Amino acid sequence: MIKVGIIGSTGYAGQELVRILAQHKKVKIVWYGSRSYIDKKYADVFQNMFEIVDAQCMDDNMEELAEMVDVIFTATPQGFCASLINEKILSKTKLIDLSADFRIKDVNVYETWYGIEHKNPSFIEEAVYGLCEWNREKIKKARLVANPGCYPTCSFLTIYPFIKEGIIDTNSIIIDAKSGTSGAGRGAKVDNLYCEVNENMKAYGVATHRHTPEIEEQFSYVAEKPVVINFTPHLVPMNRGILVTAYASLKKKVSYEEVKGIYDSYYKEEKFVRVLKNDICPQTRWVEGSNYVDVNFKIDERTNRLIMMGAMDNLVKGAAGQAVQNMNLLFGFEEQEGLEFVPLFP
Amino acid sequence: MIKVGIIGSTGYAGQELVRILAQHKKVKIVWYGSRSYIDKKYADVFQNMFEIVDAQCMDDNMEELAEMVDVIFTATPQGFCASLINEKILSKTKLIDLSADFRIKDVNVYETWYGIEHKNPSFIEEAVYGLCEWNREKIKKARLVANPGCYPTCSFLTIYPFIKEGIIDTNSIIIDAKSGTSGAGRGAKVDNLYCEVNENMKAYGVATHRHTPEIEEQFSYVAEKPVVINFTPHLVPMNRGILVTAYASLKKKVSYEEVKGIYDSYYKEEKFVRVLKNDICPQTRWVEGSNYVDVNFKIDERTNRLIMMGAMDNLVKGAAGQAVQNMNLLFGFEEQEGLEFVPLFP
Amino acid sequence: MIKVGIIGSTGYAGQELVRILAQHKKVKIVWYGSRSYIDKKYADVFQNMFEIVDAQCMDDNMEELAEMVDVIFTATPQGFCASLINEKILSKTKLIDLSADFRIKDVNVYETWYGIEHKNPSFIEEAVYGLCEWNREKIKKARLVANPGCYPTCSFLTIYPFIKEGIIDTNSIIIDAKSGTSGAGRGAKVDNLYCEVNENMKAYGVATHRHTPEIEEQFSYVAEKPVVINFTPHLVPMNRGILVTAYASLKKKVSYEEVKGIYDSYYKEEKFVRVLKNDICPQTRWVEGSNYVDVNFKIDERTNRLIMMGAMDNLVKGAAGQAVQNMNLLFGFEEQEGLEFVPLFP
Amino acid sequence: MIKVGIIGSTGYAGQELVRILAQHKKVKIVWYGSRSYIDKKYADVFQNMFEIVDAQCMDDNMEELAEMVDVIFTATPQGFCASLINEKILSKTKLIDLSADFRIKDVNVYETWYGIEHKNPSFIEEAVYGLCEWNREKIKKARLVANPGCYPTCSFLTIYPFIKEGIIDTNSIIIDAKSGTSGAGRGAKVDNLYCEVNENMKAYGVATHRHTPEIEEQFSYVAEKPVVINFTPHLVPMNRGILVTAYASLKKKVSYEEVKGIYDSYYKEEKFVRVLKNDICPQTRWVEGSNYVDVNFKIDERTNRLIMMGAMDNLVKGAAGQAVQNMNLLFGFEEQEGLEFVPLFP
Repeated sequence: MIKVGIIGSTGYAGQELVRILAQHKKVKIVWYGSRSYIDKKYADVFQNMFEIVDAQCMDDNMEELAEMVDVIFTATPQGFCASLINEKILSKTKLIDLSADFRIKDVNVYETWYGIEHKNPSFIEEAVYGLCEWNREKIKKARLVANPGCYPTCSFLTIYPFIKEGIIDTNSIIIDAKSGTSGAGRGAKVDNLYCEVNENMKAYGVATHRHTPEIEEQFSYVAEKPVVINFTPHLVPMNRGILVTAYASLKKKVSYEEVKGIYDSYYKEEKFVRVLKNDICPQTRWVEGSNYVDVNFKIDERTNRLIMMGAMDNLVKGAAGQAVQNMNLLFGFEEQEGLEFVPLFP
Repeated sequence: MIKVGIIGSTGYAGQELVRILAQHKKVKIVWYGSRSYIDKKYADVFQNMFEIVDAQCMDDNMEELAEMVDVIFTATPQGFCASLINEKILSKTKLIDLSADFRIKDVNVYETWYGIEHKNPSFIEEAVYGLCEWNREKIKKARLVANPGCYPTCSFLTIYPFIKEGIIDTNSIIIDAKSGTSGAGRGAKVDNLYCEVNENMKAYGVATHRHTPEIEEQFSYVAEKPVVINFTPHLVPMNRGILVTAYASLKKKVSYEEVKGIYDSYYKEEKFVRVLKNDICPQTRWVEGSNYVDVNFKIDERTNRLIMMGAMDNLVKGAAGQAVQNMNLLFGFEEQEGLEFVPLFP
Repeated sequence: MIKVGIIGSTGYAGQELVRILAQHKKVKIVWYGSRSYIDKKYADVFQNMFEIVDAQCMDDNMEELAEMVDVIFTATPQGFCASLINEKILSKTKLIDLSADFRIKDVNVYETWYGIEHKNPSFIEEAVYGLCEWNREKIKKARLVANPGCYPTCSFLTIYPFIKEGIIDTNSIIIDAKSGTSGAGRGAKVDNLYCEVNENMKAYGVATHRHTPEIEEQFSYVAEKPVVINFTPHLVPMNRGILVTAYASLKKKVSYEEVKGIYDSYYKEEKFVRVLKNDICPQTRWVEGSNYVDVNFKIDERTNRLIMMGAMDNLVKGAAGQAVQNMNLLFGFEEQEGLEFVPLFP
Repeated sequence: MIKVGIIGSTGYAGQELVRILAQHKKVKIVWYGSRSYIDKKYADVFQNMFEIVDAQCMDDNMEELAEMVDVIFTATPQGFCASLINEKILSKTKLIDLSADFRIKDVNVYETWYGIEHKNPSFIEEAVYGLCEWNREKIKKARLVANPGCYPTCSFLTIYPFIKEGIIDTNSIIIDAKSGTSGAGRGAKVDNLYCEVNENMKAYGVATHRHTPEIEEQFSYVAEKPVVINFTPHLVPMNRGILVTAYASLKKKVSYEEVKGIYDSYYKEEKFVRVLKNDICPQTRWVEGSNYVDVNFKIDERTNRLIMMGAMDNLVKGAAGQAVQNMNLLFGFEEQEGLEFVPLFP
């Protein structure tokens, strides 16, 4: 039984962490951090936790927290985690950061895309990018895990085997992604009001979204050369779910079986990546509430392009679920421990 | 480890049974009955079950099934279960019927409201109405459990303590209920199409809904005299959730503390009924995906009425979850075994 | 061609006024008031107005405005209109107030339920309650029209003929109402975020909602004696639409034809109230975007109650549409001028 | 005042035609064709039309209809219109076909993608592709207008100026489109049920959707050479709205002003195409219920691609609205007659 503290437990990702960890057999949450709701009962903020969580929200004293817990999750705004950590903290506890602070190795890229100064670049080198299926062994030995972004997780798992196997032209990758609205966070903004989002679709952050360099960096590691992509996110009127539709030119003629064989060889041992049958398109409803990513592809012979698709719950595999998967790796638990939710439908 | 068979496993309630039982530690599903999809892989009908359920759909041979399993769930249209059971079957296996066939003791009432002939009235007497919090001890000894309807479950748990304690006038009960659309089933009807339901509200079955006599019968047992009510269900554009708002005249002046005390005395030991704090209205989002019913009340001194409210997930506590709760009682498992889902939000 | 000014043009009701008036043949909007967006282009706030409205938002100088326009609409928070009007203004222009400031004749009732002091009670007497079907002749001669609330409009039109004709017991009236989320306004609050409202239902303001005394006052005029009711509003995940389900005990045995005859006699000349055929329940989808109220009823002989139902678009007949209907009456235009929108479906 | 007949008036596009034409000053609908609802009152199928449309549904006798009306609209399944028309009919009446039967000039392409035999290929040559902004002059003189598909309309208007001006590489065009569910029609299919669509996103018809050759053919006319594209439609949980996000490689370095200048030069005289301001992304909510298409673009200098976006109401400009726009052209009415709906928000 390990002790866990959460900083930022009253955002959507933080609350999802609580939901998952409350059902995890090897974990006890001892700190529900929330600067906005200090001293308020956690279950008064999220009534779903009534009679399940009895604790009160606390401030974000990371020093004190480091003394108490085996692992800290930070589900906080960009820049927050970087501003708080230090060697003393990391010498006492492990840290899984759900923000972007330690995802990007090049601090200039981070500062350019995020528009803020990085307060603690010296820890960037050490941080491990916590995409479990890609960095499993490194994660096991880490102190500081940078939990991947939602779009990057879905994009990476959908596309990277084909980059790795060299069948697609990395200069041609276009990712058109769609997300439910929980990805926009719990801040009180007019743009996120029910009546503004409902019965509406839009692209946003076109050519400027901050997940672009994160995806590009990981693709560059896979390709072993710089990769530049187009990434366009869209907001869709639903709570949970990310759908990635990606396009790339094929470098040579390939058969369905060859491409399927690549997916299968990468994912047949992976519990949380499901390669669908021929002609079955991933749908977010089939993964809701679970840690699964469903992937599939279609070859378009007319245009010689590969169309790759992935569906995922942005709050689970795209945030809290993957964070718990990382925690399981850090502490030597079964990787799927506490994550075997059957997707909830309808 | 008991063996379970499901007849009608490809409706929404049937699929929810599969979801819950697939995560239940003491159960193995050995029969996925579905007349519509015989020989089709279950996971091809419900892709959420891909790599989780490997079985194929089977016909509904209840005789054969009775030989194989410890308990059969029937999640089938009205009249179906009644037409199939017999003494031989019930001598070999237990049966939990999610249809209305054995809920109503007076066969004339059943036949009048449902407009069909009851094929097996001789088993009505034996059947136990499976509202666990009300009939717990009887259920433990039953062979045949009539799993309650969704509206009746929510209505009953919201209201019955006040009938039992005699503080409301049973002639004055009005239940205005609202349900998500999964309650309408998975049949392909124009009225249930996305564009017909979305951005719409309506009452239906006004003064004629079949759950009316079911609620009345149970209320009559509580009141120990005949109770006649108004019950109006409404369809609301959401997937899951039932909300009951009920009105009744108070028979005497009561304080908040007295009424709260009644709820508390009935439910303080009940895992799945949560009595909310003063002025907190039940909301369906706080119970989604879980077996909880959240209840609360408001005294209106101006009109001398008690307003009672309950929220529940119609597919869990209102159908499959309560069916599993009944199964747990039948087999001496912990009552909450496999049902401790934390509500999924958002 | 009359000149119109709107104060509060960037809330949902204000924007709906703009939408309707922009298509009205006898009106020119000359003032788009919005304290929050002064000097911003109106079409930059509401992109639907791009290339349709070219004006900028202006402050709320009512004195100046009174010089310029024939009628002012105030779609502003409670207390705002009362604090601004005076005899000079009303001597120069007509005023249609969409807030509650002049709806309730008893200032004590207003102050108790709204929890604010009324700044200008001397104008309450003069104000005409702008429920067109009920107060048509008075409205024609008014200077100051108190545009009714959304719930009161739908509740009143659904129920009042039966009070007037004396067939229901006014002590027994219970109104269970459901509203889409645009009724909650455009303020940036966590409770109104997409993910909080979507897939959720709840009652709110139980026994305390401010529309209660407004409904009661009008019912009292109809009944010619004080009427006290239960009124419970609910929030439903949709943009537009109000559905009222009301219950009352019948004072005597009545037939379907008698009750239908009452509705018909009150509404056969009314363009905007549609009495549906037997057994057809009002649905909000059939009135969306239009000024119609659809009503119907059901007699429950078992309980001797009348169940009355009404559906309406809360932003049209429940706010901006009725305000324009009032304007048409004030200026002697055809009452339906600019309001003959066919409901938009789906 | 012209007389109009509609065949297929009870699908979503047919009903939208009724809604628009009922408000059109120069038109009288004299035939509400609907094979499914013969002799049923139209307003009993669509209650929004109650007290607005008094007619009954009729069979689809095109011969008889041709004698009665000035123009026939066919909003019918593929193959239906082609099977019915003949020279006699076209000599008596004009015909606007909302199906795909006469959109594609190469009958082999039609038969391959639609999988049905074309019953009347001799009329294909004569038919004019009714994209008003592109073929205005030809439409004015036509007898048979092939009303464009929803995706093609939005895709074409979003992209074609850049093909025409030669700034994008036509081999690189990728169209990622998203549609609300009304585009899937009113057929009773499990896949279109509320609970299957709600809270879900998916791609469908990947690399095989029938609108692909329609878009390609029109692009080829613009480019004056064959164009092959990727087109991927997605289903999104909302009623109305299409959003197109399109990608193409730039053939040379261009500035924002140059690209904006192209859009402006094509659309400054076009009532129904709105070129948004810099950095404003099209959103479907801003065009709902109207005949507008909102377009904009973004240059991504990092990848040298142009990202083009368009938003439209699929039932208006994507079906019935454009059909009425075509009718206005055919009969010499003002092109915007009866189509100046201000978009409905929220």
